[in-house]
Amino acid sequence: MDTKRLEEAANKKMTRRDALKLAGVGGIGLLLGAGGMKTFFPATSTAKQAPPAPSSVDGTIPFYGKHQSGITTPMQDFICMGAFDLTTTSIDDVRKLFQSWTSAAARLTEGKSVDDESENPHLPPVDTGESMGLGSMRMTITFGLGASFFDERFGLAGKRPAPLVDLPRFNSDEIRKEWSGGDIVVQVCANDPQVAFHALRNLARIARGKAVLHWLQDGFQRTSAADPSGSTPRNLMGFKDGSNNPQVSDAKVADEIVWAQTEDNPAWMAGGSYMVMRRIRMRIEVWDRSSLDDQESTFGRHRQSGAPLGKSGEFDELELDRKDSAGKPVIPATSHIALAHMEGKIKILRRGYSYSSGMDVKTGQLDAGLLFICFNRDPRKQFIPMQQKLASVDQLNEYITHVGSGLYACLPGANEGGYIGDKLF
Amino acid sequence: MDTKRLEEAANKKMTRRDALKLAGVGGIGLLLGAGGMKTFFPATSTAKQAPPAPSSVDGTIPFYGKHQSGITTPMQDFICMGAFDLTTTSIDDVRKLFQSWTSAAARLTEGKSVDDESENPHLPPVDTGESMGLGSMRMTITFGLGASFFDERFGLAGKRPAPLVDLPRFNSDEIRKEWSGGDIVVQVCANDPQVAFHALRNLARIARGKAVLHWLQDGFQRTSAADPSGSTPRNLMGFKDGSNNPQVSDAKVADEIVWAQTEDNPAWMAGGSYMVMRRIRMRIEVWDRSSLDDQESTFGRHRQSGAPLGKSGEFDELELDRKDSAGKPVIPATSHIALAHMEGKIKILRRGYSYSSGMDVKTGQLDAGLLFICFNRDPRKQFIPMQQKLASVDQLNEYITHVGSGLYACLPGANEGGYIGDKLF
Repeated sequence: MDTKRLEEAANKKMTRRDALKLAGVGGIGLLLGAGGMKTFFPATSTAKQAPPAPSSVDGTIPFYGKHQSGITTPMQDFICMGAFDLTTTSIDDVRKLFQSWTSAAARLTEGKSVDDESENPHLPPVDTGESMGLGSMRMTITFGLGASFFDERFGLAGKRPAPLVDLPRFNSDEIRKEWSGGDIVVQVCANDPQVAFHALRNLARIARGKAVLHWLQDGFQRTSAADPSGSTPRNLMGFKDGSNNPQVSDAKVADEIVWAQTEDNPAWMAGGSYMVMRRIRMRIEVWDRSSLDDQESTFGRHRQSGAPLGKSGEFDELELDRKDSAGKPVIPATSHIALAHMEGKIKILRRGYSYSSGMDVKTGQLDAGLLFICFNRDPRKQFIPMQQKLASVDQLNEYITHVGSGLYACLPGANEGGYIGDKLF
Repeated sequence: MDTKRLEEAANKKMTRRDALKLAGVGGIGLLLGAGGMKTFFPATSTAKQAPPAPSSVDGTIPFYGKHQSGITTPMQDFICMGAFDLTTTSIDDVRKLFQSWTSAAARLTEGKSVDDESENPHLPPVDTGESMGLGSMRMTITFGLGASFFDERFGLAGKRPAPLVDLPRFNSDEIRKEWSGGDIVVQVCANDPQVAFHALRNLARIARGKAVLHWLQDGFQRTSAADPSGSTPRNLMGFKDGSNNPQVSDAKVADEIVWAQTEDNPAWMAGGSYMVMRRIRMRIEVWDRSSLDDQESTFGRHRQSGAPLGKSGEFDELELDRKDSAGKPVIPATSHIALAHMEGKIKILRRGYSYSSGMDVKTGQLDAGLLFICFNRDPRKQFIPMQQKLASVDQLNEYITHVGSGLYACLPGANEGGYIGDKLF
């Protein structure tokens, strides 16, 4: 595309976007469709299932409610996530921590400072201040408990929910402790990295004397501003990631896939969800030397459109039994989507981010990849069997290594006046 | 501020912003002023010198020109920066590398793929693809040469410009090789982190066989969307950073402070600039335990308004000789702004970003801080004396450590048809 055509496209886009804005139309993504005019490659896909309409970049997502936010909430652009280890051995301290965290998190997600206390210049500031003047940026804060939370320290061993298992070692795992586990996880997502960092840092500050950070990880997607059409983001391998995500805006689907149900869980966990975190390092340099054919057969999708191989639209149905003229499957059986499909019987809600963490000094290679995060109602029946299958035969394994891991029981939401975990402690 | 007042303010803001947009007014920052309605603290400052008007989040900044872009360009929201070491010893290879980089960089800053070659499915993709469909996001790509570029390998030792000195060791430096130096630096800034990463990665890919990455660093500021008023961003200490930056939109000021002049430089460097990079780790946890009074006297500014101590407006004049009733200077002589002021005689153009890089496994502390970047026409007369003064007595030293360092000669711009460095090679 030459400069002139690009300029024309840009002007056209501005006009349409402005027109939509003036008309008060929210669902820009639906109207512009998958063939957004910003692509530098011509669009070929004809969407059967439209991507979710993008919401405003700024705005407040309610913190209190039946479920915690940040799970079925449409993805924000940035994540700042921390795992904490408790240094206290008093359950009373833990209760106080969650009470303080709850009221701070509710304020922070509204774009307020961490506390409304007035400043005493002779004391450390109440709030660390780096998000002063910034919006709430659709921030969500989600709390989860690791298996170690239920060890002997707090007398809660009997309350450990059955689905909160110890994850098995998967084939080719190279898990490092510094990126794994933790008694408590706090996932902060927002449409601004400074707003997200500010929240996690202030929660860490509140925890002083009771808990310390075990790890902290940052991630990003393209910003909403870079892709106002709200199409499926691409991972650092250049492929769309999340096309097949279940439509959890449908409460029935969310109950089936995401929300912990009473039959498998203690009462305090009903309405919660299990979060899996996997830090997946990509062998970027190796991937970048593989052919487009290899890349597409590895994923089982066309790179540009995101369509399953042999199809033209990103959301076209997977037909895994389709054969080419030579009788070979059009979508290789060991491709990522063929395996992750799990005969259509097992689904998870993916909510991952890319990460870039400089260079690995030992190897001289980029330390970048995917901060894979998913939610499921029972990892024993969803994530674990899926990952066992992927880890054993997925073509993608040639290009990735899992270096961090965690499984956390994300508590149900709290009502205003209550606090996260009030049914447990 | 209670929820209702916050909502009212938000509604008010939307109305004013929309009204301004409809009226076609660009300088929102000028109109909303420093007392933006999104602050969770009431605004107190009355700006004497208005902050620069924010520009559109997306858009294209011309790559070709007298000077490289990304120097006096208004700051974007993200940086992805890499240093390369040459593995070739052929000056011809170096020339070819800069030719390829120039044409790729020009395309990338227009939001195009790295090359217009058509894809051969049997070969690796021409472009790694993760920015497909995204805008150009005001991306700039800026190339610089380190002192090591002028060693014996390419016969260019005689062309090393005098201002490209080896930086001295400053007091309390703890410089690590993995964050320092490099034969060539490439600074990519954009309003989207994925767009910036994509550019640097593809430039690294083009360099294969000629140069390898020595380090890669990412940084962020608040996104433009989080602060549409375009006020001075805050660093991770919660203070406004860059209030005193020179107004380089004035060509005379830029010539005086930023652009290398012929009297001190070889002809090939005229119109270039010297970039200093310092990776400055903040002792976040220590800072967070110090009192507001200590913090403000460390910077010499009020935290909330950004005003010099004793003043009310961020851009109010520094009066370093002002004394309080007890005869003590209102702005401590060892505060950061008092020292960096350098009697008003020495100025640099700061263009820094915050970084967050997880935890330091050795200390269990946050690895976060400032990716300090500045441009100056002669570091011997600007950055070095300023940093010598700061490193010896600045109160801030209690809370920071310089762990990475680099000085680079950023070449002048190229004309269309030419390439970056064409006057040197």
